[in-house]
Amino acid sequence: MSDDPKHLESFIHTLADASGAAIMPYFRTRLDVDNKLSDGKFDPVTEGDRAGERAIRDLIDSHHPDHGILGEEYGLKEGPSPISWIIDPIDGTRVFMSGLPTWGTLIGAMQDTVPVVGVMDQPYTGERFIGGPSGAKLLTREGETTISCRPCSSLGNAVLGATDPRMFAQSPDTEAFQNLADSVKLLRYGGDCYNYAMVALGQMDLVVEAHNQAYDILPLVPIIEAAGGIVTDWAGQPLRSGSDFDRSRGKMIAAGDAGIHAAVLEILKPAA
Amino acid sequence: MSDDPKHLESFIHTLADASGAAIMPYFRTRLDVDNKLSDGKFDPVTEGDRAGERAIRDLIDSHHPDHGILGEEYGLKEGPSPISWIIDPIDGTRVFMSGLPTWGTLIGAMQDTVPVVGVMDQPYTGERFIGGPSGAKLLTREGETTISCRPCSSLGNAVLGATDPRMFAQSPDTEAFQNLADSVKLLRYGGDCYNYAMVALGQMDLVVEAHNQAYDILPLVPIIEAAGGIVTDWAGQPLRSGSDFDRSRGKMIAAGDAGIHAAVLEILKPAA
Repeated sequence: MSDDPKHLESFIHTLADASGAAIMPYFRTRLDVDNKLSDGKFDPVTEGDRAGERAIRDLIDSHHPDHGILGEEYGLKEGPSPISWIIDPIDGTRVFMSGLPTWGTLIGAMQDTVPVVGVMDQPYTGERFIGGPSGAKLLTREGETTISCRPCSSLGNAVLGATDPRMFAQSPDTEAFQNLADSVKLLRYGGDCYNYAMVALGQMDLVVEAHNQAYDILPLVPIIEAAGGIVTDWAGQPLRSGSDFDRSRGKMIAAGDAGIHAAVLEILKPAA
Repeated sequence: MSDDPKHLESFIHTLADASGAAIMPYFRTRLDVDNKLSDGKFDPVTEGDRAGERAIRDLIDSHHPDHGILGEEYGLKEGPSPISWIIDPIDGTRVFMSGLPTWGTLIGAMQDTVPVVGVMDQPYTGERFIGGPSGAKLLTREGETTISCRPCSSLGNAVLGATDPRMFAQSPDTEAFQNLADSVKLLRYGGDCYNYAMVALGQMDLVVEAHNQAYDILPLVPIIEAAGGIVTDWAGQPLRSGSDFDRSRGKMIAAGDAGIHAAVLEILKPAA
């Protein structure tokens, strides 16, 4: 088995196919019905999360036993290879619990600490966003298209997404984010990983968040970068796995346009 | 032509087919590309809104010239029939602008001031939620299923959706909504009309909002009611069109369970 990034791009489809098949039986289950069957102890999000991550880990273990794995549900498995995987089987658990189709399965391949191939898979809509050395693509039931970020001339023209205002509840984050919100054309709450995919698709200009975990964001980095965008922490540093990640304190900026990214860094500097 | 509600249920599919076909060319257009073609004056949301509403109005005008119509974009046309239509061609314009698939086309038929048949159509995912005398249904590319709200034993078990926290920016709404947010299991921001559809599907328990317009909510009422849920204003009054609507000041509660609805009314009473 090869550790070549081109091979990883092909293998990651196998992983996403398996996670989608494992998770979908848990999407839009009826809690009232399921609870009757299981004494109230059935939690479809947790079950779906675990089933998805197990499906992915099993395939990595059998095809690449030397690769390390970090997953939200089953933690860290170290491996001798410079290649490792990072997994969030259901990013957007609130969305998943609410029945909306904007959660996603995030799978990233790391070369040492650098994210090199990533996927965001939405098995209900049949959308799969992938980024790596071959570029950034959106696969749907209708076929495959190359995607790219859009240019944006000024913050006043920018569409900004952020999953939840409660991410910025503490000072100085509150004030810094409010300054940003006051500067853009439009701010929309909600979205989770789907927002980052929309930056890569050239539909949004910015995502700014705090309190992200490594598995929430690292798989998305190759998608946005291959689409021509930029992802850093609030201090402007690139995102890397491992101990380097802690420095970011989970504060992320994803931008489709370099000029917009620079303008956001300036505004968020007091809270970086 | 018949004004029988069963006929309206059939006719509303014709309307939703036409609006979806008219709007979809504007979804996920690339602003940077389109702006070059049109001197920066092209606004896909406005264009999609107008195209969708025109498609719907044209069909009503030709099949039911005596029906009244109230639409977000083209205003009020009065008619001699007791049947009238209420239209929001793109509910969730922020979501539409951001490329996410959780906006919807809302079309409702009113008997005098009472909403009797309604549809929420999402042409990208191929989901159509419909409610009327024949019950509540979800149509997808895979087929048609009867849908129903789920029971919910207490507010502490409830999943609550609200499109945007900025809806509750003024006192006493801020405090009343915060009390509610503190009482539920989970609050998620974002969602627009899709949240109401998720109450009808038994995936969410509650939607609470303010500043809604009649066309934002009246088409959704028959879907939730046919699924066994309740929609009222914050004072507990049913929603009706025309001057009756003003009394609500756009403050809505949609609940899948009657006990939960009563508990929410109690909490929101100070701001009703």
